[in-house]
Amino acid sequence: MDEFELIRRFFLRAGTAPGVPVGIGDDGAVLVPEPGAELVAVVDTLVEGVHFPADIRAADLGFRAVAVNLSDIAAMGARPRWMTLALTIPRADEQWLGEFAAGLTEAAGEVALVGGDTTRGDRVVVSVQIIGDVAAGSALLRSGARVGDTLFVTGTLGDAAAGLELIKQGRPDRDLCGRYYRPVPRVAFGRSLAGRASAAIDVSDGFIADLGKLLDASRLGAEIDVDCLPISEALREAFDTASRRRFVLAGGDDYELVFTARPEDLPPAGDVRVTAIGTVVAGDKLVCREGGQVVDCGNGGYDHFR
Amino acid sequence: MDEFELIRRFFLRAGTAPGVPVGIGDDGAVLVPEPGAELVAVVDTLVEGVHFPADIRAADLGFRAVAVNLSDIAAMGARPRWMTLALTIPRADEQWLGEFAAGLTEAAGEVALVGGDTTRGDRVVVSVQIIGDVAAGSALLRSGARVGDTLFVTGTLGDAAAGLELIKQGRPDRDLCGRYYRPVPRVAFGRSLAGRASAAIDVSDGFIADLGKLLDASRLGAEIDVDCLPISEALREAFDTASRRRFVLAGGDDYELVFTARPEDLPPAGDVRVTAIGTVVAGDKLVCREGGQVVDCGNGGYDHFR
Repeated sequence: MDEFELIRRFFLRAGTAPGVPVGIGDDGAVLVPEPGAELVAVVDTLVEGVHFPADIRAADLGFRAVAVNLSDIAAMGARPRWMTLALTIPRADEQWLGEFAAGLTEAAGEVALVGGDTTRGDRVVVSVQIIGDVAAGSALLRSGARVGDTLFVTGTLGDAAAGLELIKQGRPDRDLCGRYYRPVPRVAFGRSLAGRASAAIDVSDGFIADLGKLLDASRLGAEIDVDCLPISEALREAFDTASRRRFVLAGGDDYELVFTARPEDLPPAGDVRVTAIGTVVAGDKLVCREGGQVVDCGNGGYDHFR
Repeated sequence: MDEFELIRRFFLRAGTAPGVPVGIGDDGAVLVPEPGAELVAVVDTLVEGVHFPADIRAADLGFRAVAVNLSDIAAMGARPRWMTLALTIPRADEQWLGEFAAGLTEAAGEVALVGGDTTRGDRVVVSVQIIGDVAAGSALLRSGARVGDTLFVTGTLGDAAAGLELIKQGRPDRDLCGRYYRPVPRVAFGRSLAGRASAAIDVSDGFIADLGKLLDASRLGAEIDVDCLPISEALREAFDTASRRRFVLAGGDDYELVFTARPEDLPPAGDVRVTAIGTVVAGDKLVCREGGQVVDCGNGGYDHFR
């Protein structure tokens, strides 16, 4: 099966959509942007053995490769529209490819796959790029936080890292491991934040690390209440306090949104859990309080996020 | 050196350009499209040991990764505008990265690097995506050829494949090997073909193979004169007739444009050599003539390009 046949069989059906007069099969895709909108472009790569275990199910890998990119689009407040795929695989295994394409398509929803490139290589490498759009001037940046804004986080933190730990321990838990394998990006809620929130970032590297990037970009500090950080029932049942705290503060792969806004500017949350966790302050320090005391949340001595 | 520092040091300077209110450093880039224009998106991946030898110079790799994508943009008649990079490397070697970024920047010219993702992996994998634009409805497709159109090719064919052969033989030739390491995409000429040529493709897999894709997409055949195929002096001097013929017909990596047009619609060629090589005909056969005789050019028995 050559590259062209491979694209035709597994990915072509994903390539028909509005605004795509030419999709897969030419030298490039032709895309029609919305008049007056700005574009948002994101790219994220998953490497076998680094970002996912070699024995991951192909459908989960396809799902995850799209979901992590959709999360970046959500953090920009944009609407995802078009996707390209650069896929490196050791061999053209039909069953694997069929499952991979199914997971990719499931996560993509209405986002059209408009182009791609499949190549051979020792290890699986998946790069997905998504192009979205947003009303001119309303993209959510990391740099827009203002002193006095409230810090919010969506959903619950630490589940994905806890799930990965359980996978490594060989005692998979459906809820927690599902958060790792099949993260649900906050696309609709992210879009509703555009023009309302002042800054946003998605939690991929870990809550404290990613909050630090937002504060660094905004050149501001924050005070947060660790007791307010949202924790799922599943995580509470599966791990003790110390492990939970580690997963919540430093665990990555949550793909929740951390954002800053005035409370009165919040959009309707719908069925998305939104938790106020602190306040943006002047300066460059992140102060964490727990049980009324100032504590070190892994940012000790790390006043300057740069 | 962490990923963020790496991006900052080597790639950030390439990220400031018109139409890019937000470039590298946020969750995604924000891009302002030209009012009324359509977008063209292309992606191409180079894998170590598959698309380039492990001992390639980093600057040549950076250059080539961009050039092959620019060639796809050229084949669509589009103007390249923005670029993202997904780079997988075994380790953050500063000298290697500096040279890679220099080659990438050199090939990119005015195309802005607006985003990217650097990851660790055993082998080097480079995926570049370029977004360009084109006047609405004027993108050059493979499918637009018409019966009676003349077939044209830019530049000369076979040089890159000959260069690669010389590299393998350990007797590098500057002109021919340069065509392999540093292909020059026909960006300006491709743009001038938009709205004038009826169909186009770039020669990456080999002249006969890529011409076949254009004819397949157009559901037409062609008659070509092999004696007319343009050959460089360097190729003529370095190889005998049989080798030359093989490189010209089947050698890939030329990144020249094959296109169809009425001769009166041709744009000014400027300093680009443009050669008429045949005619588009009804049917689904590619007939090759050489010395007045019908010959097999590697398409024997391959009447149906599908």
